[in-house]
Amino acid sequence: MDFLQTIPFETVGVAVFALSGALMAARKGMDPFGFALLATLTGVGGGTVRDLLIGADPVFWVGDPSDVLVCLVVAELVFALGPKRVARIEGGRRGRALIWADALGLALFAVSGTAKALAVGVPALSAIALGTITATFGGIIRDIFAGTTPLVLRQEIYVTAAALGAAVMVGLQSLGLEPFLCSAAGFVAAFALRALAILRGWSLPAFPARD
Amino acid sequence: MDFLQTIPFETVGVAVFALSGALMAARKGMDPFGFALLATLTGVGGGTVRDLLIGADPVFWVGDPSDVLVCLVVAELVFALGPKRVARIEGGRRGRALIWADALGLALFAVSGTAKALAVGVPALSAIALGTITATFGGIIRDIFAGTTPLVLRQEIYVTAAALGAAVMVGLQSLGLEPFLCSAAGFVAAFALRALAILRGWSLPAFPARD
Amino acid sequence: MDFLQTIPFETVGVAVFALSGALMAARKGMDPFGFALLATLTGVGGGTVRDLLIGADPVFWVGDPSDVLVCLVVAELVFALGPKRVARIEGGRRGRALIWADALGLALFAVSGTAKALAVGVPALSAIALGTITATFGGIIRDIFAGTTPLVLRQEIYVTAAALGAAVMVGLQSLGLEPFLCSAAGFVAAFALRALAILRGWSLPAFPARD
Repeated sequence: MDFLQTIPFETVGVAVFALSGALMAARKGMDPFGFALLATLTGVGGGTVRDLLIGADPVFWVGDPSDVLVCLVVAELVFALGPKRVARIEGGRRGRALIWADALGLALFAVSGTAKALAVGVPALSAIALGTITATFGGIIRDIFAGTTPLVLRQEIYVTAAALGAAVMVGLQSLGLEPFLCSAAGFVAAFALRALAILRGWSLPAFPARD
Repeated sequence: MDFLQTIPFETVGVAVFALSGALMAARKGMDPFGFALLATLTGVGGGTVRDLLIGADPVFWVGDPSDVLVCLVVAELVFALGPKRVARIEGGRRGRALIWADALGLALFAVSGTAKALAVGVPALSAIALGTITATFGGIIRDIFAGTTPLVLRQEIYVTAAALGAAVMVGLQSLGLEPFLCSAAGFVAAFALRALAILRGWSLPAFPARD
Repeated sequence: MDFLQTIPFETVGVAVFALSGALMAARKGMDPFGFALLATLTGVGGGTVRDLLIGADPVFWVGDPSDVLVCLVVAELVFALGPKRVARIEGGRRGRALIWADALGLALFAVSGTAKALAVGVPALSAIALGTITATFGGIIRDIFAGTTPLVLRQEIYVTAAALGAAVMVGLQSLGLEPFLCSAAGFVAAFALRALAILRGWSLPAFPARD
């Protein structure tokens, strides 16, 4: 497997999740160091949980902190924009930019998380689970730290999109296809499904909430 | 130590905690993938934290995802029952089934967590702490992700029951008793104490809440 | 590097964070085992996350549970004081003792976390990130488990103080200064900045909160 081909997925995923963390920090009225912490936790959180679970020692960003630097730069760029411009980016409809950055990160991490799990040779079901966890935990950590209802709990398709992307990638790779193609197909599947959920309010049948 | 004898404890514990996660997903009105995520996190969460702390590489379910499969099956069975039947199982009194599944998981994981910690040769106090953490973290993760007040914070005896089960097991094993007997005694101690707390509202003297 | 010289920082940090966890347990009206759990999680939580990230197997307190014992003793001493005396310690102004214990733990862990990261030879930016995480995660875990707004989200200088202490320490050590001096300077920098933030309400420019 040509691992280099998956690296851009990872770093772009880190950057867009860091962006979603910085936008959340903006909403919560944090200072520049709060932006830095929330952007970094969101950007590297999912990959960190994945690395802990597969036993990578140390975790990716500890050995090479360039992804932490990416998060810090994203955080301070958003801070430097100032409240008015950030509010304009979010576009009137509250939180649209945050939701789209989150969607992009979700699809990118579903693919990069699955790729790294497959690279260390775990069983297929574990690879799908690890891809789904990598994709969803950055956003979950962001939402829990910020004290808001996790996006993952909303009725829209969310975990589903991450699991689909991971499953598509594992399935195609088991057929012996080119890794880059598998990654691209997994990314498209996850992002397209999440985008449709956001744009059309698509959802799966669900239980009625009681609490 | 005959480790095989403790395995059923672990898998049954995974299943009942997964059940408690699925019942929480039902309350929160989640879709099938939300059920899958919450059941899996609750089912394997406590054991995952334990494995990370003792440095097991990789974590148990990554190498052999059969416990993840158990969680997925439990999640989708509960989803397939549909809202009405799930509500009937919960029995009118809100959340009774969830509380009992949680109690069973608590007692099973107190024992299986302690067993795995003893098996890698940690000091007695660490083994008790690890058993207590294994028993309580699945439920804590479930409650935090679902955005409800953790059961662990309620005035009823909860952490106490897990710690008692772990301590009974470590104590008996240090006397040289048969491992299966130690596990069984630890399980009974933890479950009986938690059951009495649920049925009779037993509690320890506590501070008055101010917040 | 004389590692022994940094150990008191770590154990004193564990004790004061355990104190802040016990004071939170008091506010939440918990029982003696709830005090034990919250004090222990807060006391050893930051160092545990650091050890997981740098790949220390097992985590520090698993191999030698003396810091867990420190947490348990602190928890039960606070419980034994009883509600009235604890309220008097907190001094009328709600939570002052908790905020000061947290500030002391923050400064001590910024230094001890950075020291342990440097000792395993990670890059400078990773060492600063790990010091900041060690310093802030115990308190974050305490606040999330207790269901209150994390201190880290408040407008006062908080993450900033931890990052400053870690950066001062890394900077001085890269100049070849005596490790103990570097630790002491890092501690003073972090604690002084946090103390000024508490006493004078110092804060950095921040975004206005919208949520």
